[in-house]
Amino acid sequence: MPAPYELIYWPGAPGRGEHVRLALEESGATYSDTARLGMEECGGIVWAQMGDTNFGDKANAPPYSPPILKHGDLLIPQTSNILMYLAPRLGLAPTDDALAIYRLNALVLTALDGLSNEVHDTHHPIAKELSYEDQKTEALRRGQEFVKTRLPKHLSYWERVLKGEASGDGPWLHNGTFTYADLVMFQCIDGTLFAFPKVMAAAKESGKYDRVFALYEAVKARPRIAAYLASERRQKYSIGIYRYYEEMDVVPTEDK
Amino acid sequence: MPAPYELIYWPGAPGRGEHVRLALEESGATYSDTARLGMEECGGIVWAQMGDTNFGDKANAPPYSPPILKHGDLLIPQTSNILMYLAPRLGLAPTDDALAIYRLNALVLTALDGLSNEVHDTHHPIAKELSYEDQKTEALRRGQEFVKTRLPKHLSYWERVLKGEASGDGPWLHNGTFTYADLVMFQCIDGTLFAFPKVMAAAKESGKYDRVFALYEAVKARPRIAAYLASERRQKYSIGIYRYYEEMDVVPTEDK
Repeated sequence: MPAPYELIYWPGAPGRGEHVRLALEESGATYSDTARLGMEECGGIVWAQMGDTNFGDKANAPPYSPPILKHGDLLIPQTSNILMYLAPRLGLAPTDDALAIYRLNALVLTALDGLSNEVHDTHHPIAKELSYEDQKTEALRRGQEFVKTRLPKHLSYWERVLKGEASGDGPWLHNGTFTYADLVMFQCIDGTLFAFPKVMAAAKESGKYDRVFALYEAVKARPRIAAYLASERRQKYSIGIYRYYEEMDVVPTEDK
Repeated sequence: MPAPYELIYWPGAPGRGEHVRLALEESGATYSDTARLGMEECGGIVWAQMGDTNFGDKANAPPYSPPILKHGDLLIPQTSNILMYLAPRLGLAPTDDALAIYRLNALVLTALDGLSNEVHDTHHPIAKELSYEDQKTEALRRGQEFVKTRLPKHLSYWERVLKGEASGDGPWLHNGTFTYADLVMFQCIDGTLFAFPKVMAAAKESGKYDRVFALYEAVKARPRIAAYLASERRQKYSIGIYRYYEEMDVVPTEDK
């Protein structure tokens, strides 16, 4: 019997763990998820991994932070790294092209940097250790810069990738084939829609990013993804990477 | 004849491209580097890749930003991704253990997130598009939080990795073997020493991170690295990721 996939991640929001869940759900894999255990039990498991007293074991360095994938004796931290390990095993990356994984990993790293980390940093521009309220002035400024400059830059980039020849025919990012990079892009757009609904509605309406939104809808309509999103296994957005603050939900000043 | 390695990166500071250079230099590989061409010629090459009118080609999506590695027809963007491609080819990652690359990639992603991106964000907490002077108030606050909270967190983490069994004997991060992850760690420490000399001197003196500084010195003393650092191929620190601003170079308030 193959080892089960075990996801170690915080409960209470989709977070970075969501990218791992979407890959496992899309492929119909059996997996456990510490987020389903609730904060107390899950917290114990997460802190045993990332706490100051964990030095790892003979094979595994201590992970810096979740998400962490446990597969048999192997512990893999870092979202893009976990996905790179899982995707060929789950049928979410080509296995007949040794270079494809570098192309997909580049897309995934760019998406996670831009439409996940940068969205997070709008509400935490000074330090992760401080609350939003303690850095709200800076957050409002960073949020305004994000909707004005960074978000259009990222959306334009992805539209350009999807227009480019290497994306092939159809809605997907790589060579006309559905891959885990499309799942990552879906989650990044979904989270940004939650955090910045006004500017994202304007972006959709502008018609400038039709391929980006078509990819988003195409992933959302995949039967296993649709069933998963409707299930209790999908964590609700809350105080995670993607947060809704009314005062942050603005369109760029020039467009008012 | 094998295709040459071609690094596409900005001139004027080591930057993210430096991680790629260190791998190529340590292994004695022949490579070209657009940074040596000076700003005008190099700028033309970089903008041809990342500009709004580049849609990539049949095999390669347009890259979001440099560093970009060109190897024959293959274009690989994203620092950690380039290194993952290069390291087994350059003898800087084990090739007899299929899982080692995931362990090394996790270390590299953690180092680049923590001691490269976070150091950059101390002087650009609001937006990459604004100058330091336009976000100086926020930068000073982020810088103080960095030296107080984030930097000790990262240094402690790396000391823990090096204490852990998986790092093996000797100064290196993985299994007693010198790998590209050690080169990445060297550059992250070197840049942080440049940007925050006061707090880094205090960190060294504290004796709490002896393994981290021993790794740094061990990489620096490697003959090819030492020769490279003394050469004109090494870009000087300037207005890049790692910057020195006197007003940012503080020790945590409590320790004053």
